[in-house]
Amino acid sequence: MKFASHMPQALEQAHAAAQRGEVPVGAVLVGADGRVLAQAGNRTREWSDPTAHAEIVAIREACRLLGSERLPGARLWVTLEPCPMCAAAISAARIQVLYYGADDPRMGGVRHGARVFDHPQCHHRPEVIDGIGAEESRLLLRQFFQKRRVDGRLHD
Amino acid sequence: MKFASHMPQALEQAHAAAQRGEVPVGAVLVGADGRVLAQAGNRTREWSDPTAHAEIVAIREACRLLGSERLPGARLWVTLEPCPMCAAAISAARIQVLYYGADDPRMGGVRHGARVFDHPQCHHRPEVIDGIGAEESRLLLRQFFQKRRVDGRLHD
Repeated sequence: MKFASHMPQALEQAHAAAQRGEVPVGAVLVGADGRVLAQAGNRTREWSDPTAHAEIVAIREACRLLGSERLPGARLWVTLEPCPMCAAAISAARIQVLYYGADDPRMGGVRHGARVFDHPQCHHRPEVIDGIGAEESRLLLRQFFQKRRVDGRLHD
Repeated sequence: MKFASHMPQALEQAHAAAQRGEVPVGAVLVGADGRVLAQAGNRTREWSDPTAHAEIVAIREACRLLGSERLPGARLWVTLEPCPMCAAAISAARIQVLYYGADDPRMGGVRHGARVFDHPQCHHRPEVIDGIGAEESRLLLRQFFQKRRVDGRLHD
């Protein structure tokens, strides 16, 4: 079975997050039947919620929609390597495949640092496919942080 | 400065979670001024939300209360060693001290497995004080899982 890439929509969510002044990360969660269950971007600033990363917002929305705390067979598309919080939530939700864009050596928790899926304490490991749309994701993040630094200087 | 232990209230929250059929873990979040900001137990089943661990529920509630995604100077009391998701959320919220009860070799992410605070990708490390109320916390968990196994057999 061939699955369509949902990275373009995830990147759209990342762009929208940047417009709201949030770190530009976007996620799309697709059910086992291929239906889009949730799309989200970061909302930590808007919601005053340090857990409102794109992945967590999408997982919570999809679980609420289905009335289940598990999403077997689901596929998550996200523009950046998940942090340890999001990686552990992806495991808890029993997501089957994680597709992510850019690596995040500074804060990532899948291929870097805590490597959440690589310990016996992780009881469900998704398949991980990385590097999809990585260039656009990286560019978006670089522009966002460059702008924030410039704006910071203007307000000094 | 001496801080009062909030583990008794955290254990009360864990008992209440067991009553609701949730894994018995409880948390109390105290602000820099010693005021209790939030108390919570697990709500994953009730809310169909795999992220609704006691720590996450307490952090989200406290952040909403204060209108901030960071809680500098805050102290979190939790009955069980946090998992990697909760450990990373504790770091993101800039909580100053984490007091926890029982170790969790099976799913923990602080002293076990992912050891979320022990990597350069973790940009804020709370002070960690463990073993407080560990015996009662462990007993509560053991009783809960024993009962669940017995109930499971009765429904076979």
